[in-house]
Amino acid sequence: MNYCPDCGRAVSIRVPDGDNLPRHVCDHCSAIHYQNPKIVAGCIPEWQDKILICKRAIDPQYGKWTLPAGFMENGETVQEAAARETMEEAMASVHDLELFGVFNIKRVNQVYIMFRGQLPEPRFGPGAESLECELLTEDEIPWLELAFTVVSKTLELYFQDRRDGLYRTHMGDITPRRLPKP
Amino acid sequence: MNYCPDCGRAVSIRVPDGDNLPRHVCDHCSAIHYQNPKIVAGCIPEWQDKILICKRAIDPQYGKWTLPAGFMENGETVQEAAARETMEEAMASVHDLELFGVFNIKRVNQVYIMFRGQLPEPRFGPGAESLECELLTEDEIPWLELAFTVVSKTLELYFQDRRDGLYRTHMGDITPRRLPKP
Repeated sequence: MNYCPDCGRAVSIRVPDGDNLPRHVCDHCSAIHYQNPKIVAGCIPEWQDKILICKRAIDPQYGKWTLPAGFMENGETVQEAAARETMEEAMASVHDLELFGVFNIKRVNQVYIMFRGQLPEPRFGPGAESLECELLTEDEIPWLELAFTVVSKTLELYFQDRRDGLYRTHMGDITPRRLPKP
Repeated sequence: MNYCPDCGRAVSIRVPDGDNLPRHVCDHCSAIHYQNPKIVAGCIPEWQDKILICKRAIDPQYGKWTLPAGFMENGETVQEAAARETMEEAMASVHDLELFGVFNIKRVNQVYIMFRGQLPEPRFGPGAESLECELLTEDEIPWLELAFTVVSKTLELYFQDRRDGLYRTHMGDITPRRLPKP
């Protein structure tokens, strides 16, 4: 941020009175512009013993597999955001969303909020951001071709819970994937 | 938002190509400025059969009682935000934070993420935003003097869970309190 969104003058970065962190402050109109983490809402769409995943048609991670997920918008609940992303990316309706996990990705100032959701029928297709979508059993998950650590982590916990016969609500931190040394 | 935070020129509100919602768009530098919901992280600090609540020294709801909670900042996890707010508002350390609930407040584009947290000792005091802080039993909670519906709802669910001997993770929507007609 270089300019004040309110009045258009240049902003400076300093600690406002009564605060303890540097903020973007407008010395002209005195507005303080806070920057806060964003919520990514996502879904594990379930149909019998299968789940629906999408192959990404956009960067980052073009061609890798992911769960439907994206930035929550103003004017919606987290569940509505997760259902909207499932419609946009996999052209599928989900209902009965149950909270599955909250995952911090501190490095990029994101909090993922993931749900399990029921597909009323096995009806889906690739939305604009997907190359293809597939209903897959646990054995068919392309574990080495998943787009993001938070997706791998969510699916590992999901299948573990399913084997245990009990879906928990998870709270975790996602740290960068450790790549093997060359 | 009137001006582009990147280049300082006036922004217009329109639906960008490939999008389906109106956004603040800069016609000069082409930046799209999204606005997203904010996370409020909060805590139910527990000591034996009591919990710690704070009397607000700021508006809105000056003089009413609340749980420690506030906007999550960049560069922290949700748990770290909840612990930081507990320190700022009640000068108390909490540890072993457990996810208690996620609550949508769609009307104001906020998502509350609440935790239970353990006080290692009954040591606390009013921070800058509190008039006083108190460790209270369920019977002592000033139900009619609570600051926000999300606080009443969190405490109702908390004491219900405690009576049931099982803390669940809750997901709910907070709608405006219905005031009695005059």
